Amino acid sequence: MQNCIIASTSTIHGSGPLEYLFEALIELYTDTNEILFIPYARPGGISLDEYTIGVNNIFKKINKRVLGIHMFSDITEAFKNTQGIFTGGGNTFLLVDQLYRNKVLQPLKNAIELGTPYLGTSAGSNICGLTMQTTNDMPIVQPPSYKTLGIMPFNINAHYLDPDPNSTHKGETRETRIKEFHTINPQPVVGLREGSWLRIHQDDIILKGTLSARIFEQNKNPYEIVSGSSLSQLN
Amino acid sequence: MQNCIIASTSTIHGSGPLEYLFEALIELYTDTNEILFIPYARPGGISLDEYTIGVNNIFKKINKRVLGIHMFSDITEAFKNTQGIFTGGGNTFLLVDQLYRNKVLQPLKNAIELGTPYLGTSAGSNICGLTMQTTNDMPIVQPPSYKTLGIMPFNINAHYLDPDPNSTHKGETRETRIKEFHTINPQPVVGLREGSWLRIHQDDIILKGTLSARIFEQNKNPYEIVSGSSLSQLN
Repeated sequence: MQNCIIASTSTIHGSGPLEYLFEALIELYTDTNEILFIPYARPGGISLDEYTIGVNNIFKKINKRVLGIHMFSDITEAFKNTQGIFTGGGNTFLLVDQLYRNKVLQPLKNAIELGTPYLGTSAGSNICGLTMQTTNDMPIVQPPSYKTLGIMPFNINAHYLDPDPNSTHKGETRETRIKEFHTINPQPVVGLREGSWLRIHQDDIILKGTLSARIFEQNKNPYEIVSGSSLSQLN
Repeated sequence: MQNCIIASTSTIHGSGPLEYLFEALIELYTDTNEILFIPYARPGGISLDEYTIGVNNIFKKINKRVLGIHMFSDITEAFKNTQGIFTGGGNTFLLVDQLYRNKVLQPLKNAIELGTPYLGTSAGSNICGLTMQTTNDMPIVQPPSYKTLGIMPFNINAHYLDPDPNSTHKGETRETRIKEFHTINPQPVVGLREGSWLRIHQDDIILKGTLSARIFEQNKNPYEIVSGSSLSQLN
């Protein structure tokens, strides 16, 4: 019964925030006038209110209103009758920490499993995997657990970046980091490039956007899948 | 009484592992024949033995022998009479997790405070700050705490990378990530570029190498310091 868009990034080069997704969002949020926004990831450290106001200004363009979850005194109240949900990007450690501390994780999972339209971008997409352990973010706070929603039976790596063949930098490539992840953890990782998203509808998971995605499975060589491919068998 | 080299990276472009540091290492390890090596960070997921053998092959070039800490059945024994210590790079989460689980953190801190010559590279340098929270690595395991050795009264960011003005990538820059860190944590962060190191000798901390370093203090604009500057007043 799930109905989600799991996007690598909110913004692609050369266009405004979420613009490249507007068509897909109009379809996702067909019956949604008001979106419950989860601003906990606070990109660049902006406040919950600033973040919510900015996101409301974006969604105004497709005639949706946005309410921040921090505006409710009661979490159960926030999810009651919600017509659609969006979790924005920022710092994944901060997001997951706040989801645990404010007891939002389980009601959020329930709402998504009941079919409430859900959009995640960047950190808001990372939390849809089994764990947040393939984030690129800095551990600026220590969440009680790295376990996340498990809407998909794998992890994603948002903002996936191919190694630059001309780089002289010796810090680990993204691929090396994911390889290190797989020496300890078994679940597949979907490297989602900026401009790609996963469309989860009922039991299907389809790669969308123009780019291919890079799939990392434990003890296998990484491989590419083209846009339009199904990922529902990946686990 | 400390005597340390805290390096951004083990290897710089165009030269072999640690080669750019050999001269400084010969001075650091003047009275050291045998180095106690901490291989827990396992770069790329290699084994503790593989990592130790590789490091021994490097130190052979400057006439030092290397013993891996995992070769000792007893941690106290490992630190008894140790003449020098090296913690290598890899994944900082894995390193810190193993330091806690194997109860190495406190004996390591004691040995450094007693003046045992210490080299850290990358993850092995991150652990010398107050916390590991300005690492670039993926959280492939969950350590019991992010608190680290506190040999210096600040954190470092190893492999510090300047924003690329031509980049079309929308993932956070290193500077944005550190700014997010400072919305929650007060300690300064030293962005150490590849090829830079900190020379800690008694109570002084000097920036070495040819490059400048970028200093991030909470509620201040970031600024550069040139090689040769003292960091002992930064806290």
